[in-house]
Amino acid sequence: MSLNEILSKTKASAKKLAISGAEERKNILNNIALLLNERRQEIINVNKIDIDNADKSGLSSAMIDRLRLTNKEIDGMIKAVNEISMQNEVIGDVIGGSTRPNGLKIRKVRVPLGVVGIIYESRPNVTIDSAALCIKSGNGAVLRGGKEAINSNKILAEIIAKSLEIAGFSKDVIYFIDDTDRNIIKEMAQAKGLIDVIIPRGGEGLINFVVENARIPVIMHDKGVCHVFIDESAEYQQALSITFNAKVQRPSACNAMETLLVHKNIAPSILPDIAEMLQEVDVDLRGCEETLKYVDCRPAIEEDYYTEYHDMILSIKVVENIDEAVAHINKYGSGHSEAIVTKDYNNSEKFLNEVDAAAVYVNASTRFTDGGEFGLGAEIGISTQKLHVRGPMGAADLTTTKYLIYGSGQLRG
Amino acid sequence: MSLNEILSKTKASAKKLAISGAEERKNILNNIALLLNERRQEIINVNKIDIDNADKSGLSSAMIDRLRLTNKEIDGMIKAVNEISMQNEVIGDVIGGSTRPNGLKIRKVRVPLGVVGIIYESRPNVTIDSAALCIKSGNGAVLRGGKEAINSNKILAEIIAKSLEIAGFSKDVIYFIDDTDRNIIKEMAQAKGLIDVIIPRGGEGLINFVVENARIPVIMHDKGVCHVFIDESAEYQQALSITFNAKVQRPSACNAMETLLVHKNIAPSILPDIAEMLQEVDVDLRGCEETLKYVDCRPAIEEDYYTEYHDMILSIKVVENIDEAVAHINKYGSGHSEAIVTKDYNNSEKFLNEVDAAAVYVNASTRFTDGGEFGLGAEIGISTQKLHVRGPMGAADLTTTKYLIYGSGQLRG
Repeated sequence: MSLNEILSKTKASAKKLAISGAEERKNILNNIALLLNERRQEIINVNKIDIDNADKSGLSSAMIDRLRLTNKEIDGMIKAVNEISMQNEVIGDVIGGSTRPNGLKIRKVRVPLGVVGIIYESRPNVTIDSAALCIKSGNGAVLRGGKEAINSNKILAEIIAKSLEIAGFSKDVIYFIDDTDRNIIKEMAQAKGLIDVIIPRGGEGLINFVVENARIPVIMHDKGVCHVFIDESAEYQQALSITFNAKVQRPSACNAMETLLVHKNIAPSILPDIAEMLQEVDVDLRGCEETLKYVDCRPAIEEDYYTEYHDMILSIKVVENIDEAVAHINKYGSGHSEAIVTKDYNNSEKFLNEVDAAAVYVNASTRFTDGGEFGLGAEIGISTQKLHVRGPMGAADLTTTKYLIYGSGQLRG
Repeated sequence: MSLNEILSKTKASAKKLAISGAEERKNILNNIALLLNERRQEIINVNKIDIDNADKSGLSSAMIDRLRLTNKEIDGMIKAVNEISMQNEVIGDVIGGSTRPNGLKIRKVRVPLGVVGIIYESRPNVTIDSAALCIKSGNGAVLRGGKEAINSNKILAEIIAKSLEIAGFSKDVIYFIDDTDRNIIKEMAQAKGLIDVIIPRGGEGLINFVVENARIPVIMHDKGVCHVFIDESAEYQQALSITFNAKVQRPSACNAMETLLVHKNIAPSILPDIAEMLQEVDVDLRGCEETLKYVDCRPAIEEDYYTEYHDMILSIKVVENIDEAVAHINKYGSGHSEAIVTKDYNNSEKFLNEVDAAAVYVNASTRFTDGGEFGLGAEIGISTQKLHVRGPMGAADLTTTKYLIYGSGQLRG
């Protein structure tokens, strides 16, 4: 089948899902959770093939970790599906409306987007999370995962297809593309009229490729170059613990800190303690000229400030004042998650107002930016763009709106 | 100055507008209204140059009509600016939030998008409407109008610049590009990091050009291929008057009807009356085979059903039932405005649920789809896409959101 044929089938079968009831969609999700549990040994066995192949082709151990499905990961997928199933219904939500002077009754309601295209890399759990969120929000989906996880993804896609069929829907509602050629991504990104939005989840290379080739709307889950700014009035111990948490607790996360900014008046006292704390757990530090006066580390170059290390590496820069901190963040940051540590009320408000990012924190770690922590439920990614959705993206963000207008013969004058 | 230099200036000066108070932005708008009034004779004189040039180059009278600025059009611009000025403030609106179990206080607020790029054709009032909506919503804007209106647009841009400066803002907040070369559109559509969203307002050619060249998000104000479906149970007189209003009241509007669908059981009685009513005012009818049995008109071809005539032309198709009507609309329609005329409750609900469009009407003319009629205030266009905004697009739709998080030392566990 050509991609166009696949997409046409998904579009047609998604229409039935779009007008289904919440309970019918819940059934599909419950089937997925049950089948994941029933077939867990089979999943683990198939996943071993991907792991073996990855081993043979010399993938990094971090990559292989992302690929691996053990009982723990399968429990995690089941939990995510159950949580999504239990979330509030989003389809049909009335989010506005009025009765006009001419008697027209207007209701603005949430409706599914249609067909969502999701392009991702090596984590097989994305197959389940994405399918579950699309089903919850009444959307069809076309999934295209990375070639490393192809065998794992195929069995997961089989489970999704079976779950749809048991619940009385066509398996084409969620279509997993097992062609790992990169041209398919380009074709998907140009499928105007067949895919309503495309969501690339992965590295900068993938995202840029999709954006450059897209003829349909894209929602980016772009990189996170996140900062913590230690203001002159920061509570000392809090500054240390937030710095440690934001960098070390999970350095591979997109909401982890990449650059620490320190007010020049607190730098001489706090920087040696920060350096000791981080170097003890092997964080590789890169400091500006001023930093190097207090810390024994390699110098930071301009490029460091733009880099998402995804790793135990941290740039440090001493700044004159909060204005320089805000300017640095707005220049080098990626608009993801930014934090200030301060006891000064005016500076907290200034930072909240002037920093341009999806999430801006006062006296808390940047690591909290995600759907679960924000109480929004499971997420399909964290949007770093400004249109449609900014920040954690859940089922409600996979909808559009429709105006329903109830008239009694009204004519425009 | 290069486009990049212009955009950098607009971006920088928009930052000041973004954090300004509602009253400061109101001042700018009031200045625009005052200066439009003061300089109206000058505007009319300058507009005459554009009209003369258009005459000489043989533009159609419809095109020249769109170009023309008389006292009436200037009053209209002043009224629009005043209305926008009086609308509720959108910046800073708290649209969500919670206190998390760990004590983090989360607020989701509306903030400006940044810099909006607007590309339009011959109507000079778009210069004023767009600038006013961008100022209201705290955005900078880069405007690029059609070459036919260049002289009119230049004086309007001068008024906007002056109004910004009197209120203490840089004139660069709203930059009018007087270079009418098409390459500028391409450059604008690729200005990643400098323009946050680009809005093409105009014909299909312009929109396709922008979409194909864009590397930044686009909000489309695409064509309106709108339908009225006369169901078998329709109230006869209502069906006639809605048909007449939707086609004839302003055929050049994007929410005007282009194709009439008629249930086969009511077609024999109503089609001759409809034909008489429309042909009397010189509507050119194009009928399907079944229609031709009752109406003396030229046959419709497949392409007619995809066409936005923007004119006194109407396609007519007889359908078997509501399912065929819905399928026709979802295939040939552009997702703009669709209406059913019916007395049958179940059919009204089926039509509302299954038709995929920005606005779906029961027993009312499609002509009501606009910001003013929906009570949303002035609009910058009617979005026919599903992401970010669908339907009339006002000041609130020129915003994004930001999560503000108030902590007390929270760390992720």
